[in-house]
Amino acid sequence: MSTIQDVARHAGVSVSTVSNVLNGRTDQMRQETLARVQAAMSALQYRPSTLARQLKTGQTPLVGLLVPSIANPMYGYIAREVETYAQERYGYRVLIGNTYRDPAKEASFFEDLLSHGVRRVIVISSLADERHLETAAERGMVVVSYDRRANEGETTRIDHVTPDNFEAARLATRHLIARGHTRLGYATLAGMTLSRRDKIRGFLAAAEEAGLSQSARVLDSGPVNEYGDSMIAENGRALARQLAGDAERPTGIVAVNDLMALGLMAGLRESGLRVPEDVSVVGMDGHFLAAISNPALTTVQLPVPAMAAAMVERVMRQNDEPMPDSEQALFTEITLVERESVAPPGDARPAQAKQSRTRT
Amino acid sequence: MSTIQDVARHAGVSVSTVSNVLNGRTDQMRQETLARVQAAMSALQYRPSTLARQLKTGQTPLVGLLVPSIANPMYGYIAREVETYAQERYGYRVLIGNTYRDPAKEASFFEDLLSHGVRRVIVISSLADERHLETAAERGMVVVSYDRRANEGETTRIDHVTPDNFEAARLATRHLIARGHTRLGYATLAGMTLSRRDKIRGFLAAAEEAGLSQSARVLDSGPVNEYGDSMIAENGRALARQLAGDAERPTGIVAVNDLMALGLMAGLRESGLRVPEDVSVVGMDGHFLAAISNPALTTVQLPVPAMAAAMVERVMRQNDEPMPDSEQALFTEITLVERESVAPPGDARPAQAKQSRTRT
Repeated sequence: MSTIQDVARHAGVSVSTVSNVLNGRTDQMRQETLARVQAAMSALQYRPSTLARQLKTGQTPLVGLLVPSIANPMYGYIAREVETYAQERYGYRVLIGNTYRDPAKEASFFEDLLSHGVRRVIVISSLADERHLETAAERGMVVVSYDRRANEGETTRIDHVTPDNFEAARLATRHLIARGHTRLGYATLAGMTLSRRDKIRGFLAAAEEAGLSQSARVLDSGPVNEYGDSMIAENGRALARQLAGDAERPTGIVAVNDLMALGLMAGLRESGLRVPEDVSVVGMDGHFLAAISNPALTTVQLPVPAMAAAMVERVMRQNDEPMPDSEQALFTEITLVERESVAPPGDARPAQAKQSRTRT
Repeated sequence: MSTIQDVARHAGVSVSTVSNVLNGRTDQMRQETLARVQAAMSALQYRPSTLARQLKTGQTPLVGLLVPSIANPMYGYIAREVETYAQERYGYRVLIGNTYRDPAKEASFFEDLLSHGVRRVIVISSLADERHLETAAERGMVVVSYDRRANEGETTRIDHVTPDNFEAARLATRHLIARGHTRLGYATLAGMTLSRRDKIRGFLAAAEEAGLSQSARVLDSGPVNEYGDSMIAENGRALARQLAGDAERPTGIVAVNDLMALGLMAGLRESGLRVPEDVSVVGMDGHFLAAISNPALTTVQLPVPAMAAAMVERVMRQNDEPMPDSEQALFTEITLVERESVAPPGDARPAQAKQSRTRT
């Protein structure tokens, strides 16, 4: 790549003359000199580095986006929406990084972004402890944390955008209750993020208001394999196999997200249980994969495009602007999409291994 | 964010003294001065900007990764593998951008990356015309193009890494033929990338070697909706509905990728056709979603982690190093993963609309 020095040499002028051209200070310049510099730039395919400009302003047209795992299709979906909005509205690119919900990885990503001059970061499903985000905000970053609320009564420099996770889980659970389910399960993962906690609360609230607290169980499928979120489906699958042997298993299960729900359905099927005849399943996310699963997954649709737009708008604010109203950061336009994975509870038949499909 | 000027002011020294500290030129410095500068850096949480270093070297520890759509779970999977490898092996971050296979978007991404000092780019499923990549390579970028071969006999500055797409499609098609299928279909998308062309050739080659050329049909599901690759499943769904009304429809279909296969299976089911009893389906990719679909999808597994590692290794080479051996860029370790979506052809029954599952 050619440098400003190359251009100066090629044009037979000083570096500061080239710099003047780059910065539009050409009114004192002879027409012939200007033409020579421009010809040299063109011949050398010279592009003024934005790095120099960034160095001056301390800004770079990048937004960082930290996700637990881009291999989770839901984060791919959110990332696509964020990227599209940031680019079309602000001409910003998005720098995506995987954190695997590892505190050290998430923190060192912040260090990296900061030292690259990236001043705007969206963090998805951050860890329960947001101190490293506070530190980054103190050092001049604009930080938007997705899928979290601010801790009550705490002042914070971090902006939050989140779906109403409590309401999402309550809506899903109420749907099962309305269809006649009394033995309720909530399938979650080990590791308590704020959004997971809110969803559990929503599940329990729905059970309680129906007088079903005694028969509502939170089912922990264990930790996510460190290899990433694609494994959440495996958690669901393993949990389903466990439930198959449990005579008191729930007849209706709400899953922490669509991927878990898809894994649950696969595991139930492999254990000889039918969805929805033996077990009903409701997801949360509204990912497009829910629409093409078999049976098609009933799920709670989150307003992803609206939330992505809000995250970008908020992360683009100037550091000296006041924090936007946190009331508007809670997205409540949550809807239930009814498909095929919920039915009234039947007589639960005993689990039976699926027939082998081997053919000759 | 504090600057070198802030540190100098805080410490009561000149900017060049701070610069000397940053660059390790402290042997001539009084111990007391050094301590004062270090204390100021610490008090101001000053971080030396890597931008300054980048400006000197013209390098930045970033790899660009251009994908048609991060909302396509397969690209999420590849991106995860690339990012993990680049970070763990080289300490590089990955800058992901969505191109939507739009020539203007892809080209302007290159401009952006170049002007950000990003000199290493991996492009996934690029357009048929790679001239904009050649231009970028001429200007000093190291470019690795995934899922493409170099055009035969052409000298190029672009490095290529690709699975053996011809062999992948041939393997999938041979599997259907071995199971007794004679009416074969290949489900593809409008828009001819090189990888799509190779897959079609592989499909036709398998049909030809079995004497089935007359009954092998390439089924074009139309263009991908510009909103992105999540829509590929919708293409499959729409194609399936079309096939349902076709008495001469294939009994065995190979899909261009797993997402298309999943959409096909959903559409067939919605049209009252059973997989695999009425229509067998084989995917290509080996995405984890194939394992949890119902029926579980038989698919051709591509060696994604090995290809991701190769792409990173190749994109990290120095510009003056010779191009790596192109022979090693073709990944042939392709295997068929047999699951449930293929069976011998039955008597195709007439398509019948699925019973409504509406319950009260």
